[in-house]
Amino acid sequence: MSDAPVDKPARRGEVALSFDPARTADDARLRFIGRLRSPWSRGNCPKNLREAREDPHEPETFRVEIDPPFREGIAGLQAGQPVILLYWTGAARRDMIVLHPAHRERPTGVFALRAPSRPNPIAVAVVRVLALDLVAGVLMVDALDAFDGTPLLDVKPWLSSIDIPPAQG
Amino acid sequence: MSDAPVDKPARRGEVALSFDPARTADDARLRFIGRLRSPWSRGNCPKNLREAREDPHEPETFRVEIDPPFREGIAGLQAGQPVILLYWTGAARRDMIVLHPAHRERPTGVFALRAPSRPNPIAVAVVRVLALDLVAGVLMVDALDAFDGTPLLDVKPWLSSIDIPPAQG
Repeated sequence: MSDAPVDKPARRGEVALSFDPARTADDARLRFIGRLRSPWSRGNCPKNLREAREDPHEPETFRVEIDPPFREGIAGLQAGQPVILLYWTGAARRDMIVLHPAHRERPTGVFALRAPSRPNPIAVAVVRVLALDLVAGVLMVDALDAFDGTPLLDVKPWLSSIDIPPAQG
Repeated sequence: MSDAPVDKPARRGEVALSFDPARTADDARLRFIGRLRSPWSRGNCPKNLREAREDPHEPETFRVEIDPPFREGIAGLQAGQPVILLYWTGAARRDMIVLHPAHRERPTGVFALRAPSRPNPIAVAVVRVLALDLVAGVLMVDALDAFDGTPLLDVKPWLSSIDIPPAQG
């Protein structure tokens, strides 16, 4: 469990919850199923997947490693296929509900932002599988914007029939 | 925590883990932040969002309710905007790693399927916000394919710059 300290909001207009979900949350429990491999750590991490894609890198730079008990779960995935990764950004504060990022004019609710800091710090990344090794439980993917070693929660096929928003009515 | 029974695999070729993440998982803990409202329950639920959209329904049929402590978190979302919902399908078995759905020729790993049954039963839905009530903490959305009362984990803005897969290299 995270022991991230509960500090006062850092910027004008930011709002913290009166409790810290990192310490009190227990509606459901997760099992990490693997981890992300990237060149990124605090200080050199791109802000988002677009920036990660634009950064020059070797083809095998970005990998998703599945732990042994869960490796059979990737059988059926194909090289070239787009997937959704869910991963845990639990080093971020979970008690902030309104943030004021530098690029925003005004304080904004965490559910209107993609910041890692949120009550349930689960990130979503849509990436393409470049190659996969079913036995080793490894997916090579086109980009990642998460720190090396970030815990993996889930992999899902990305489907154009449901994962593109409907046209505006 | 789920007390779903650990049964033997139901179809030829299906594989269960040797442990049940529902009983043993504790790498991280979640806090439910609200719930989904839909006409769906066991027996009448569409198979996916596309089917839910095609089903005739009134405009306020599908709602996302945010619990009071978390309501400030939706400030900044706009009507018309597409969002990603993360929700908990924890009634499903968490110990299955290979499934054989009726529509598949052969058994398939859960990470190549969108089935609710997976080690971390977190579902992803991309929907459009039709209207929102910041005070009541309610988002009206264009469709949902989850049971009424399904626990909500997160809401994120859907961004075309990162949430559409890159062109195949």
